[in-house]
Amino acid sequence: MKKTAASGKRNLYAVIMAGGKGTRFWPLSRENFPKQFLRITGEKSLLQHTVERLGGLVQPRHFMIITAGKQNELVRWQTDGVLPPAAILSEPEGKNTAPAIALAAFRIHKKDKDAIMLVMPSDHHIKNPDGFADAVRKAAPSAAEGWLVTFGVVPTRPETGYGYIQAGKKMPGGAFKVESFIEKPDRKTADALIKKGSVYWNSGIFMFSAKAILSELKAHMPALYSAFAKIEKYLGTAKEAGALETLYKTLEPESIDYGVMEQSRKVVVQAVDFGWSDIGSWNALEEILEKDENGNVISGNALAVGSKGSILMSSGRLIASLGLEDMVVIDTADAILVCPKERAQDVRKVVDLLKSAGREEYILPRTEERPWGHFSVLEKGPSYQIKHICLKPKARLSLQAHNHRSEHWIVVSGTAKVQRGEEVFYVHRNESTYIAPTVKHRLENPGLIPLKIIEIQSGEHLGEEDIVRFDDIYGRNTV
Amino acid sequence: MKKTAASGKRNLYAVIMAGGKGTRFWPLSRENFPKQFLRITGEKSLLQHTVERLGGLVQPRHFMIITAGKQNELVRWQTDGVLPPAAILSEPEGKNTAPAIALAAFRIHKKDKDAIMLVMPSDHHIKNPDGFADAVRKAAPSAAEGWLVTFGVVPTRPETGYGYIQAGKKMPGGAFKVESFIEKPDRKTADALIKKGSVYWNSGIFMFSAKAILSELKAHMPALYSAFAKIEKYLGTAKEAGALETLYKTLEPESIDYGVMEQSRKVVVQAVDFGWSDIGSWNALEEILEKDENGNVISGNALAVGSKGSILMSSGRLIASLGLEDMVVIDTADAILVCPKERAQDVRKVVDLLKSAGREEYILPRTEERPWGHFSVLEKGPSYQIKHICLKPKARLSLQAHNHRSEHWIVVSGTAKVQRGEEVFYVHRNESTYIAPTVKHRLENPGLIPLKIIEIQSGEHLGEEDIVRFDDIYGRNTV
Repeated sequence: MKKTAASGKRNLYAVIMAGGKGTRFWPLSRENFPKQFLRITGEKSLLQHTVERLGGLVQPRHFMIITAGKQNELVRWQTDGVLPPAAILSEPEGKNTAPAIALAAFRIHKKDKDAIMLVMPSDHHIKNPDGFADAVRKAAPSAAEGWLVTFGVVPTRPETGYGYIQAGKKMPGGAFKVESFIEKPDRKTADALIKKGSVYWNSGIFMFSAKAILSELKAHMPALYSAFAKIEKYLGTAKEAGALETLYKTLEPESIDYGVMEQSRKVVVQAVDFGWSDIGSWNALEEILEKDENGNVISGNALAVGSKGSILMSSGRLIASLGLEDMVVIDTADAILVCPKERAQDVRKVVDLLKSAGREEYILPRTEERPWGHFSVLEKGPSYQIKHICLKPKARLSLQAHNHRSEHWIVVSGTAKVQRGEEVFYVHRNESTYIAPTVKHRLENPGLIPLKIIEIQSGEHLGEEDIVRFDDIYGRNTV
Repeated sequence: MKKTAASGKRNLYAVIMAGGKGTRFWPLSRENFPKQFLRITGEKSLLQHTVERLGGLVQPRHFMIITAGKQNELVRWQTDGVLPPAAILSEPEGKNTAPAIALAAFRIHKKDKDAIMLVMPSDHHIKNPDGFADAVRKAAPSAAEGWLVTFGVVPTRPETGYGYIQAGKKMPGGAFKVESFIEKPDRKTADALIKKGSVYWNSGIFMFSAKAILSELKAHMPALYSAFAKIEKYLGTAKEAGALETLYKTLEPESIDYGVMEQSRKVVVQAVDFGWSDIGSWNALEEILEKDENGNVISGNALAVGSKGSILMSSGRLIASLGLEDMVVIDTADAILVCPKERAQDVRKVVDLLKSAGREEYILPRTEERPWGHFSVLEKGPSYQIKHICLKPKARLSLQAHNHRSEHWIVVSGTAKVQRGEEVFYVHRNESTYIAPTVKHRLENPGLIPLKIIEIQSGEHLGEEDIVRFDDIYGRNTV
């Protein structure tokens, strides 16, 4: 990470909101693999870029990534070696941003009364990280003075996909008093706003002192405030998870925008211009990825013949587009999306249909990340399943057994160290081994290059949940 | 096959032209798997339907399927048990329809001076086979009298994708003298033609006596005629293949339409109406497959959300279409085509690009048919390849060896009988075996249900051509 001297670094805390339902970027995102985990802009995921961007500003132990449910594990694997595990905080379930920020504020304020919180989503794109760091430094004094600073992006077009902030008079610190928040406008209203001026896109990035946000929560969301105040003593203790579990059952979902920002008189907007996008739909890729001479965004194995203004993303197989205009084609191992760009924001409708039909394509991606590497499902049959498994060098799966399935392993690259029952042996490239049901086993990559194996599972029940873990170096639950 | 009493059955010969480059129905069709082999309309391929349709009219030993190059094997496997192997005649290379028909005419006339030939493509669709049989019976007298009968389809719309035939005066046999052949018209011309009347679509289906077509070939394509006349003595003998090999190198490609039909004064058109389509592009599926209430043709795993007039074909994975209008989306294991319907006829451009780039997606389908069943490539890596292999009951691969690859086999369904070197043993479901390079081996399905195995090949060279056959029950070349 780049080391940048940051004013206020000692008491600056990063609060990254990493919830999400995985609908907007379906089929690349799934319920179990939402947008922030996607490697859309390169080798790193949006979450990893978010963490990296904050690296020069905030100490690792001052990070807090708020997530929910199973996504907790994905956050851990994607921040492994960069942030301490304690940086990850799981809500029992997502209840929109107000409860998440209240939780973060109470927790941080308990440790550090002078804390300044920099709150942001985990799945946005910022082209110019230095500009972002500058903006944080400029906003720090206003935040320290007790203002709730929102980052307002200087608009570059009459975008209808963002909310707007109408700025009022200039404050001494350089920010503007907020006159009003404006919901996503229609095109005519957006044109009028841009013409009128002094408006900014609402980025959803905030900076305030823990003290100030708590005070405004108390004033404008008193029920939420007092609910958290009652369990404050448990925060950061062994009783925290239980207390949150009970508390969250009683909470109404609410956004911080509606609950506090639109009500409070302490809100200012800091004008920023660091190449921001919320990547709100497939269309947004046009802003952040390179286009060819016909305005197509092409990622992976795709051929654009007489096509223009289209977004083509392949996960492997060839997409051949012929005469397309302003279309979106997204290919993944088990599902393809095809729609006009103007309908990309409606992908939710497809996801809702899949969800109500109980279709797996809604929940699981075919390639899943694990702390030891990843696997892809190549084919599923009625009583067998073929996986391509890739273990990072030195990675080690848990010592485990399955009740209902046997596993054949064929090494296609690298060397495997296998524990099977009491035996320990090596399996080399082009060799195979077999694990019978109920036999304790462990797979390890002792080598220096990735270990790739093809696994053929066979049995009457092939779900991931048929796993009994006896020991795990990644701290997952064992029996 | 339906037994229909057919007049002239004793001397009626079916000549089925089964060439094709696999471009129009890419990515489902490939150079090595052209349209006639596709099972577009159901369980049977277009070729199989063509053979079946003729079954009641023509004796099996009076069939001649003219094909070229490697497609010869596919024709054999798809007609196995229905037609004798001698029914298949390979041209050394495709030179359009005139040489193919000349070859058929010389060959048939050599055996049967009174032969009537019914010549047709292998990849058309005919909705009403009884109507087709009626048309053949009605045309027989004209053909026997020495006319070249073309089947002219009563047009149902001003189609611009077909050539037209302008009919003249009615003949005693019920056919019409042909006034002129009209190239594929533009829309305006097509409208005018339909309005004018007495026009028919040129189906490319012909009926004539061998004697008559030979006489017209002699008159209008004298070079072609005399080239074949010179090798007539070799036709049907062991020297035939060699003679054709030499002859074909000297032939110019030419269509029978241009070379004979448009020149001859002996051509009549028989009006027919049996639900014909040449299935000339993806759009034609609208005419022959069922549509949903929004006019979408959907085949396989596809979801049409707010979509209309579109053609969606999935080979497995989910196609989610959102807001599509008049689009074509075709998914196969290794390539997807997306284009507006009005551009479907330009798929050739994509294929040309792939061809010039030497891309495999142009040549090979991921699923290939074999006489013993079929296999699909699930994944290819730099030095391994995973295949799903399916053997029909009682099927038996050749006794073979590979120089460069080893093979792991895992049985996922059925029971395998394996010969490996001198050993013979059975491999049951969920068991595996290993074949080292250069070891002679044979795989057999001794059972009553399909045998499904997953094969992982490993080695430095994985092409299908690395196979040495020692014995083969399907008559393929052995060492």
